[in-house]
Order: sequence, then C-alpha cells, then structure tokens
Amino acid sequence: MKENNRPLILISNDDGYQAKGINTLIDMLRDMADLLVCAPDGPRSGFSCAFTANDPLRLTLQRREAGLDIYSCSGTPADCVKIALDQLLPTGDDGKPRWPDMVVGGINHGDNGSVNSHYSGTMGVTMEGCMKYIPSVAFSLCDHDPQADFEPMRPYVVEITRRVLEQGLPRGVCLNVNFPMGKSFRGIRACRMAFGTWYNEVETRHHQRGYDYYWMIGHYRNDEPEAEDTDNWALQHG
Amino acid sequence: MKENNRPLILISNDDGYQAKGINTLIDMLRDMADLLVCAPDGPRSGFSCAFTANDPLRLTLQRREAGLDIYSCSGTPADCVKIALDQLLPTGDDGKPRWPDMVVGGINHGDNGSVNSHYSGTMGVTMEGCMKYIPSVAFSLCDHDPQADFEPMRPYVVEITRRVLEQGLPRGVCLNVNFPMGKSFRGIRACRMAFGTWYNEVETRHHQRGYDYYWMIGHYRNDEPEAEDTDNWALQHG
Repeated sequence: MKENNRPLILISNDDGYQAKGINTLIDMLRDMADLLVCAPDGPRSGFSCAFTANDPLRLTLQRREAGLDIYSCSGTPADCVKIALDQLLPTGDDGKPRWPDMVVGGINHGDNGSVNSHYSGTMGVTMEGCMKYIPSVAFSLCDHDPQADFEPMRPYVVEITRRVLEQGLPRGVCLNVNFPMGKSFRGIRACRMAFGTWYNEVETRHHQRGYDYYWMIGHYRNDEPEAEDTDNWALQHG
Repeated sequence: MKENNRPLILISNDDGYQAKGINTLIDMLRDMADLLVCAPDGPRSGFSCAFTANDPLRLTLQRREAGLDIYSCSGTPADCVKIALDQLLPTGDDGKPRWPDMVVGGINHGDNGSVNSHYSGTMGVTMEGCMKYIPSVAFSLCDHDPQADFEPMRPYVVEITRRVLEQGLPRGVCLNVNFPMGKSFRGIRACRMAFGTWYNEVETRHHQRGYDYYWMIGHYRNDEPEAEDTDNWALQHG
C-alpha cells in the first residue's frame, strides 16, 4: 500500500472478490483513495451480519498494486471487515496501522430494498463498519446479472463516496444506496424501507436415499406498493 | 399437534434444540399454548438474520407429544422459522394450516444487549417472525453457562408472552428481552441499545502445513457505560 495522505477505504461485498460489482467499485474509487479489499472467496448472499463463531478462517492475498491490496477470505462479509481491521491494515508513515476513513460494501448484484435488506451480506459489511464507528455505505444495483452494467452508477458512487469522506456520517447511521436498473436515473431520494415479504421460500426435493431435503428460494411481494415514501416504490419509478 | 382453540407459538433459538434454554422455554410456555419447535441441530451463535441460499437443508422430527412438535434443522435460526412456516404448521380444525400467533426466540445462553444484538441468531429468529408480521419476542439470560438457572425468569417469560398473545405488537416492532444474571431482578425497563464494540476479534494460529488460520473471538467494550437509558447499563444494575 502507498504511504501518503490519501484516504483509506475498506471494501468488501457478499458476491465474492471475483464478482464484477466489486471490481467495478474498485475501478470507480481507485483514483480517490487507497483501497484495502477483503472480500469472501465465493458467494455469501443472505449472510446478514453473521460472523463465524465456530470455524477457523483463511485469508489469501490475491493481488497487490500501488494503493490497492485485494484479499479473499473464507468467512462471511462481516468476518471480512473484522479480519481486515484486525490483520490487514497498511502501516502509515508514523509506523502505526492506518484506520480506514470509510467502509464501502458492494456493488451488489441485485437490490437491497425493503425491510428484507436485513438479510443482506452487503449490508452486513456496512453495518460492521458502522458498528466500528467508520462511515459506511452500501451500493447495490437492481440487476442480478453477473455481467450487469454498473457504469451509469459511476458519477453517483464517486460523489457519494467523496461527500461521506469529507463530511462523515452520524454515529450509528450508515447508508444503503440502491440504483434502479437502466441507463438513466430520475433522481435521488432518501426513503424508508418498504414492508415486503418473501413467500413460498422452501422447495422440497426427495433424495434417492429416502429422505427429503430443502432449498431456500422464494418470491418477493411488496406489501405496500402504493407507498411513495418507500425504497421499493422509488426504485420501481426510476 | 392438538386441534383446539389454544394459541400456537413457534419457538426457535441459536444454541440448538438440545440447549437447556430452549427446553426450559418449552416447559414455561407449554401450559398456555400449543408449541411448534424448529431449532438448529447445533450451535448457531452469531448467525444474525442469515439464511442459507446455497446449500440444501435437512429436517428431523425429534419429539412429538400432545401439543408439542420438536424438529431440528441443519440451517440457520432464520431458516428454522422460514421452513417451519412453510412446511411444519399443524392442521387446524378447518383443515388449513394454523398460522402461529407468536414467534419466541431463546432462551438464549448469554445476553443480547447493545447494538451488537445485530449479530444474534436469537434475534434472527425474532426478526424473521417480525418480518412475517407475527408478534415476536426474544428472551436472553446474561449467563453463558450451559447449565444456567433460568427459573427466576419464569414468571416474566410467562407474563410477557401472555400479554403479547393478547395484545400483539405494532407492525415492524419485536421485543428483545434480556435478564440479568441472578435470582432477583430490580425491575423492568425499556432501553435503547448501547453503543459498544467488540475488539481484538481475531486470533491467529499457524498450521503445521505452513499457513495461518484465524479464529473469531474478541472482547466486548461498552462505549457509553454511564448512559442510564441503555440496555447495558440496566442489565449491569439489575
């Protein structure tokens, strides 16, 4: 890592270090800060704020360039933040570990709208940063395509990050920033989380050895589709 | 399960179906409701609201008596609630599945105080019930001993459960009820979550095959020990 006066941003996600979203985020933020990336070694969607209490974790340095370290971790999104803060901080000019100026989660492939964002591993990253009193933001795009086009988000991601670096956030407050699919956005709105429900969440299959097993899947239903002050409504309306 | 007009309570936890805490809870609530228990097949502390997106789950009926079904599940605490609501509801007199009147998580071995209750699998149970619009409560005792004495909690657990069954809870509101250690309580107080931090969370070990591995552990620090409106303060003062 470079030793300089640039800010340091810790980045993680729940789609894994190889996902297009996190690599696009790295590209977007690289000019404005030194980046320490510690992300899961594979998909960890739905891991919420979970951490790994009962198993040992592994860390692997995947890439090191000027101003950029990328590690993969065998744990959860929250584990990635914890282990980065404890083990991976670069040394500053004063010989001490540099504490991150900001934690950024994402860019998530798929939205984190509604109260169901409690399930989000991307929000797990951001909540973990927030609980360590670091200004923390999650970015998500309403597009699950592994090859989704994140470029329309670039000026917003850069500007929101720049402002949070400059102004910080109140203690106990983090940002959950969602972008509608598409090439243009109608505007920016601060919203409350919609009430919504996942239903038909379990698919039963029968194993040839004589037992049933279950996959967690399901469909999402917005339970207040007319509520214009909600994130679901705003995202559906651009 | 009995078919009658008694309420139905869905119970889960994060310490596993064999823990003393959940079995004590079953004993406490059995007189007042039919109980459907679906709990992890082993410890799942720290699982937050996580659900299992990428692996199949297994269910095992452990015990069936009048008014009591106990299942173990290979998934997370939130998975247990989801799979119980989708697969395990008893049939009512009208031939339809009986929807639970309440979800109860616990009794947890150890407190779920401070903002760090976001990590709690017991709260994962309760948040999941809340997101399904079922009145939901978590009970925790500030004692990690597997043989902890839960009996002093009994009248409070029964009374809080009775009141929530009668009166319900507002949409989006669940209760996180913590009990201090000891045989007597000085009173009941509704508190905000204290700001507190886990630190020294990672222990590094070297494996003989030449790599490092890491355990998530750590120590808790209350960052506002003088704040009398917090859960940490109230629990420390009985």
